Amino acid sequence: MIDNSTPGKDISLSDIQSKFPLASKKNHDHFSSFLIAGVQFGRGFCPVFAGPNMVESEKLIKDIAINVKNSGASFLRGGAFKPLTFPYRSTKYNESREKGIEWLDKAKSFAKIPVITEVMEEKFIPLISEVADILQIGTRNMQNYPLLTACAKTQKPIMLKRGFGCSLRDWLGAAEYLLIEGNKRIILCERGIVAPHTHRSSSRFLLDLQVVPAAQEFTHLPIITDPSHACFWRPWVSQLAKACVAVGSNGLMLEVHPDPPNAAVDPLQAINYLEFHDLMKDLKLIGEVCKTKVGT
Amino acid sequence: MIDNSTPGKDISLSDIQSKFPLASKKNHDHFSSFLIAGVQFGRGFCPVFAGPNMVESEKLIKDIAINVKNSGASFLRGGAFKPLTFPYRSTKYNESREKGIEWLDKAKSFAKIPVITEVMEEKFIPLISEVADILQIGTRNMQNYPLLTACAKTQKPIMLKRGFGCSLRDWLGAAEYLLIEGNKRIILCERGIVAPHTHRSSSRFLLDLQVVPAAQEFTHLPIITDPSHACFWRPWVSQLAKACVAVGSNGLMLEVHPDPPNAAVDPLQAINYLEFHDLMKDLKLIGEVCKTKVGT
Amino acid sequence: MIDNSTPGKDISLSDIQSKFPLASKKNHDHFSSFLIAGVQFGRGFCPVFAGPNMVESEKLIKDIAINVKNSGASFLRGGAFKPLTFPYRSTKYNESREKGIEWLDKAKSFAKIPVITEVMEEKFIPLISEVADILQIGTRNMQNYPLLTACAKTQKPIMLKRGFGCSLRDWLGAAEYLLIEGNKRIILCERGIVAPHTHRSSSRFLLDLQVVPAAQEFTHLPIITDPSHACFWRPWVSQLAKACVAVGSNGLMLEVHPDPPNAAVDPLQAINYLEFHDLMKDLKLIGEVCKTKVGT
Amino acid sequence: MIDNSTPGKDISLSDIQSKFPLASKKNHDHFSSFLIAGVQFGRGFCPVFAGPNMVESEKLIKDIAINVKNSGASFLRGGAFKPLTFPYRSTKYNESREKGIEWLDKAKSFAKIPVITEVMEEKFIPLISEVADILQIGTRNMQNYPLLTACAKTQKPIMLKRGFGCSLRDWLGAAEYLLIEGNKRIILCERGIVAPHTHRSSSRFLLDLQVVPAAQEFTHLPIITDPSHACFWRPWVSQLAKACVAVGSNGLMLEVHPDPPNAAVDPLQAINYLEFHDLMKDLKLIGEVCKTKVGT
Repeated sequence: MIDNSTPGKDISLSDIQSKFPLASKKNHDHFSSFLIAGVQFGRGFCPVFAGPNMVESEKLIKDIAINVKNSGASFLRGGAFKPLTFPYRSTKYNESREKGIEWLDKAKSFAKIPVITEVMEEKFIPLISEVADILQIGTRNMQNYPLLTACAKTQKPIMLKRGFGCSLRDWLGAAEYLLIEGNKRIILCERGIVAPHTHRSSSRFLLDLQVVPAAQEFTHLPIITDPSHACFWRPWVSQLAKACVAVGSNGLMLEVHPDPPNAAVDPLQAINYLEFHDLMKDLKLIGEVCKTKVGT
Repeated sequence: MIDNSTPGKDISLSDIQSKFPLASKKNHDHFSSFLIAGVQFGRGFCPVFAGPNMVESEKLIKDIAINVKNSGASFLRGGAFKPLTFPYRSTKYNESREKGIEWLDKAKSFAKIPVITEVMEEKFIPLISEVADILQIGTRNMQNYPLLTACAKTQKPIMLKRGFGCSLRDWLGAAEYLLIEGNKRIILCERGIVAPHTHRSSSRFLLDLQVVPAAQEFTHLPIITDPSHACFWRPWVSQLAKACVAVGSNGLMLEVHPDPPNAAVDPLQAINYLEFHDLMKDLKLIGEVCKTKVGT
Repeated sequence: MIDNSTPGKDISLSDIQSKFPLASKKNHDHFSSFLIAGVQFGRGFCPVFAGPNMVESEKLIKDIAINVKNSGASFLRGGAFKPLTFPYRSTKYNESREKGIEWLDKAKSFAKIPVITEVMEEKFIPLISEVADILQIGTRNMQNYPLLTACAKTQKPIMLKRGFGCSLRDWLGAAEYLLIEGNKRIILCERGIVAPHTHRSSSRFLLDLQVVPAAQEFTHLPIITDPSHACFWRPWVSQLAKACVAVGSNGLMLEVHPDPPNAAVDPLQAINYLEFHDLMKDLKLIGEVCKTKVGT
Repeated sequence: MIDNSTPGKDISLSDIQSKFPLASKKNHDHFSSFLIAGVQFGRGFCPVFAGPNMVESEKLIKDIAINVKNSGASFLRGGAFKPLTFPYRSTKYNESREKGIEWLDKAKSFAKIPVITEVMEEKFIPLISEVADILQIGTRNMQNYPLLTACAKTQKPIMLKRGFGCSLRDWLGAAEYLLIEGNKRIILCERGIVAPHTHRSSSRFLLDLQVVPAAQEFTHLPIITDPSHACFWRPWVSQLAKACVAVGSNGLMLEVHPDPPNAAVDPLQAINYLEFHDLMKDLKLIGEVCKTKVGT
């Protein structure tokens, strides 16, 4: 019923075979299923990634690791290498870089929880790969193809965030660059897109939940959602997180910090331990209705 | 060099007091609550509006009315007067207009279910008001201020669909035109917006669920969501409908038709009776988690 | 080369024949050509519409009429009935309505310049038609089909502004509603669209000049451009106006006011007499390069 | 309840001082002026970059170099390393990579015209820097900060294309990463953005000319425009190119190929020698009106 031989912004039938044959589903019920650090990914599972925007100190990341794990998080998230829109840091903020990776490693051992963190440059892949269970490609690097290829070649699992101006078609093209290296454990992550309106002047992106069933129509790869970066506004996060699970996300990423207003980066968007704990209870119940297991 | 006192696209503090004082919340817990045809609207309630895109015949609309009611719908929806993007109708399709209103009236008595239908012109307000329990203002008329004022003056409840290119700020401005006439039973309805990407070439709009917590931050008016018109693609509707409830919508509108591929209008988007019935069960369970009563 | 049997957001070959047969070009060189109040419209001509956002007083509109005419404007523009996003007026601003139409009439006789003004409601069409040489349909009413039909039936020339969230496809659909009434003097007007970014927080829309060659590929109707409403920022208007002529616009609309910061409406966007006078000289020269006659 | 001190999507006064102090203008008349390979950049100059999407062969690039130079181009453009949305190449197309750089070098000597070409990876910077007079950062790499820093450190002139989902604010943030390395010869290039509508199903982006006066309000850096990549449709390129000059662009990039339908990449968008030659004549005349010198 769908045809479009001409190039377009949205997906057409011919794309599926010629543009991303590895990312495309072979049939209606084709969904990838795999383990990462003992955690099951695929249809029927919704692992939860939780943690701070930035790994600020060893003490703090250990504390967060224990707390999110106890509330049911499957992975600890936290940035050590971070792309920022402007080159100037505040007095409070400095990228923790190599030190941050070391602290993540300690938090991982301490709390016995696998970790995910972002890779921005090929040269840090070996260092990060020793600690991270999943390599994260950020929104600004979704179409940095040399970086994609270098990450894929490690055969480490990869989470590919959607470029905030990119279509699902572009995104599956980027995933194809990963799959073509023989790497099978690839996860997509929706994190908010540019749109004409975001409702409040402090919001920057719009969470696109329509992309979840859309991705599940076209690709077998798991798709997870990140409402924290999308809405950039703590009071909206819990409601959106519930919608993320209900729409059928195959995973959820949430920013959690013990004292959000004093977080080093993006203090408007993180939720605190108690909010996360209460939210996880509701998410698990919604997951039961939707036949998906949320968190651990 | 820059003057920032001027209006922007998203909402700022000064807007709340000067642009839509009646639509704005007076305090954090301020949410409107009212009855329409015995159905409760407001926080904690999620009435369901279900029915066909167009009222095609007396027989069909009666059949749909009974079926959606039995599955838990609170209102029967159906268009008699319909704005279409192009002036040419197919051989199959003709607006049912006055006849459609008559058929809606018969279905309403037959199934004992209240109805909602669209008003496009001031001159038909009296006719439609005799039958409809809620007057619907469509997306293309959100900023047709004379029509808004004329509808508001009837003191009938009004559902105001969001213009597909309009911001929440524009939308609350339009609601203010209704409220200023003393009409208190005003419902907002998100139905999909224009966006750079909609994922498949047959989709036209993007469902914006971020607007639900955003609206609930700024206005006391109930906000309902319509995933059918937004995604325009049946296979995505159920997942999106679950997300609509989970995000905290104060109502849900769904297109239901016994034989969707043969519906007179928009045959790609309606779900059938069985899909609706099964969906309602899940929606009620998700509603329980989110402390909202879905449907009857 | 173009195919799209499925509905899409952009134009496909099948649309041209089935959706807007009257608006579509019959061949590559098909462009409408007609006179309005002695002014030539069509390929090779770029009439200029200039004047204030609102008709504020008889004295002021007469003064503006004389001045813009002397600088080469073809038509006087000015709003008497105006849709505003919020129902509250400032102390300074009140719609001039019937009085504004009367003042426009006086300015028209005084300066011997034809006029264009907006129609918002069917009931005012007779009054406005007595004075206006062109009826303007505003951006918020582009898809108010009953209003379109009522205006078209007068057989007065009509300028149809593009809805700020609407595609060219939607726009040609609306034009078709006008053409189907036998009205041949239809002009399209691009006035800025919603987009993710508009560059400064006081700007609301993005001027879309790509739509000019696009419209000229698909329709024979003249397309004019309005940079003032689009960019909403005086310092950008002259540069954009030059681009409007260079891109091949078949007309230009500009907001001109003797004292822009004290204009009753939208004080940020109008240019003053001197700026308009100087701009017109450059526009005429650019028009010569582009083989189009700008203004009178 | 609302905090507006946080970052928004468009530019505010506080941004200018804290986010991009080096890219910001010091006063109204502050515009950078510099030479690259003997070509003057800055206010009053509009150098033209012309050439194929990809450097296909030595013979072809030499032929193009001679032809565009004779028609007035200031620089030869051509891609050797190219990011493509999908990993699969056609039988016709293979990136020319190191060979392409060598061919560019030969064309440069042969036609005595400086060249610009894209850098995708840090490791190829030395190779490319030997040949290129300007390093081009592509739209997909605008926020690849390590690449930006590595390019900036060479002190070679850099052209920074706008990310297709990025705001002017994001863009100036990226430029700041270049300027902070002491590199002063930085050029911005608008090349089309994502938008809800692009008018025909084969078009992918929307040319944003409003960003030209916007950039010139906020930054002293030259801003050039690329209508070819933006509209992706040959029949629209000439009209848009004229608008690019008329709006005040400080440079123009155009795709030119002797046989566009048989170009290895993007065959829909290049113009041929004759079209380029005729266009240059008109552009020079429009430039005279706008007080800018177009091409050589």
